[in-house]
Amino acid sequence: MKIKPSYPNYMDIKTYLNEKKQQVENGLEEFMFKAEGPLTEHIKALRYSLFAGGKRVRPILCIAAAETVDQHTDYNTIMPIAVALECIHTYSLIHDDLPAMDDDKLRRGKPTNHMVFGEAEAILAGDGLLTFAFELLTRHNTNQIDPTDRLRIIEIIAKAVGSLGMVGGQALDLASEGIDIDFEQLRLIHSCKTGALITASVQAGAIAGKATPEQFEAMTSYGQLIGLAFQIVDDLLNVEGTKEELGKAVGSDAERQKSTYPAFFGLEKTRTMARETVNLAVTALEDFNNQADSLRELALYIYNRTN
Amino acid sequence: MKIKPSYPNYMDIKTYLNEKKQQVENGLEEFMFKAEGPLTEHIKALRYSLFAGGKRVRPILCIAAAETVDQHTDYNTIMPIAVALECIHTYSLIHDDLPAMDDDKLRRGKPTNHMVFGEAEAILAGDGLLTFAFELLTRHNTNQIDPTDRLRIIEIIAKAVGSLGMVGGQALDLASEGIDIDFEQLRLIHSCKTGALITASVQAGAIAGKATPEQFEAMTSYGQLIGLAFQIVDDLLNVEGTKEELGKAVGSDAERQKSTYPAFFGLEKTRTMARETVNLAVTALEDFNNQADSLRELALYIYNRTN
Repeated sequence: MKIKPSYPNYMDIKTYLNEKKQQVENGLEEFMFKAEGPLTEHIKALRYSLFAGGKRVRPILCIAAAETVDQHTDYNTIMPIAVALECIHTYSLIHDDLPAMDDDKLRRGKPTNHMVFGEAEAILAGDGLLTFAFELLTRHNTNQIDPTDRLRIIEIIAKAVGSLGMVGGQALDLASEGIDIDFEQLRLIHSCKTGALITASVQAGAIAGKATPEQFEAMTSYGQLIGLAFQIVDDLLNVEGTKEELGKAVGSDAERQKSTYPAFFGLEKTRTMARETVNLAVTALEDFNNQADSLRELALYIYNRTN
Repeated sequence: MKIKPSYPNYMDIKTYLNEKKQQVENGLEEFMFKAEGPLTEHIKALRYSLFAGGKRVRPILCIAAAETVDQHTDYNTIMPIAVALECIHTYSLIHDDLPAMDDDKLRRGKPTNHMVFGEAEAILAGDGLLTFAFELLTRHNTNQIDPTDRLRIIEIIAKAVGSLGMVGGQALDLASEGIDIDFEQLRLIHSCKTGALITASVQAGAIAGKATPEQFEAMTSYGQLIGLAFQIVDDLLNVEGTKEELGKAVGSDAERQKSTYPAFFGLEKTRTMARETVNLAVTALEDFNNQADSLRELALYIYNRTN
């Protein structure tokens, strides 16, 4: 049951996503180390997961947010930030997949990093990607974004993915496997584990585009709501999706007795909640003109996605 | 065979180290999350390794470097940077100790992080500490250090501990176990794995103290040389030290067929190399007045240490 966009649809979301995805891929290729020299094996491990065909949702959200507040956003200004976000996302997947964590053997239809490079190298590949993200956030384009704003972007991202954010969310998630948790705890896990980085991606783009405080607030609400929607849909796909669509095992949440939205509310109500959350996200952008259409479309895309 | 300081010894190094160590401990306590709320277990894992009694060499080097170029260095300015360096060092120890890596069960006389909290939590504790370091580097004392200099500090540290630095060094080190490597490769592993963060600690302090380009260059040489000395002495201690002094297994390098300085040059020549390296480090500071005595003493301390 897809949501059809109801506002002036100035673009086709698939074309938009493909175009932005290609830009992000180019950015990844431009900034990431080449697999050469004494560290070839290590860099191969980084690149393996980074170029394993992700949807690039976080960097695209960052670029779209920047372009919403500043339509003349420069590619060179925003791309290091966008790439940094994808590096952080990829690191989190590599570590989450480890045998000691979720023990996943398949990711995006391919063997997970540790299945190819071994556990030690997978841990180091994750560490390397996380660290590289912070390097990227400092070293480029000093002249385009005010240094104080760049520090603010780094701070927001570091907080979002640290112990009180994404890392903490994964810790809570692991600790909650097989035990009963209440809905409040589930919400906390979701907002830390998935929501925080998605929100930070939007916020980083907004700051790079020189958002006003009001625009930044609206973007933050939007980011939080699509972050929530993203995780609800993830829970749905884990029940309803196919292994072919997802490129990873399905039904694994139930198998691990993980608390999920469908486990709490059933499929139908969960679907309604996802739709309502996306609608709220679109509403959060009501003060923006049609420059925010890409973000509106992205919200619907998050609801409609099948992987 | 200890080196006796030959220049005017304005302070007792043990008193100095104790005083600075206490300041760093206070800083760690001030900045690190308290173990409370839903993330108590995760934060306990972070704190366990952070407060396991390290020597705090890297933060002390950072503070000493800052005070060498600016004797009025403010505690509030330098401490977040010093604490960040210790967080990064601690993260690297937690990950290096993991079963998939060096599989060490003892560190500083205590069970390693994963022995107490399990592998998954140890991986996340490391991730959390690394990320927190970058948060710390952004969020404090905007008014004391120029934002551009703060970005430069973050960049230097991120590069030093990333895939072409500390993380890459650990990858090379693991890959070289049990195989013959030449001396050039050993030097590369050492300079990446240990030297880079030590050098960055000195550089970060120098920038925080507003070093001139010439002072920064001298500090960089000093940092590289004591980083090298530190690793040579580590190799020596792994052969000559006792388990009681080191708080970890001895002879483990030989057992793992690791290439080390003593394996290449024998004990006596290795000792001479360590001493000469420390002397060169002291020489690198010759243009500084006695404000650099703390750094000079620290170089000797690195040579003389027994753990």
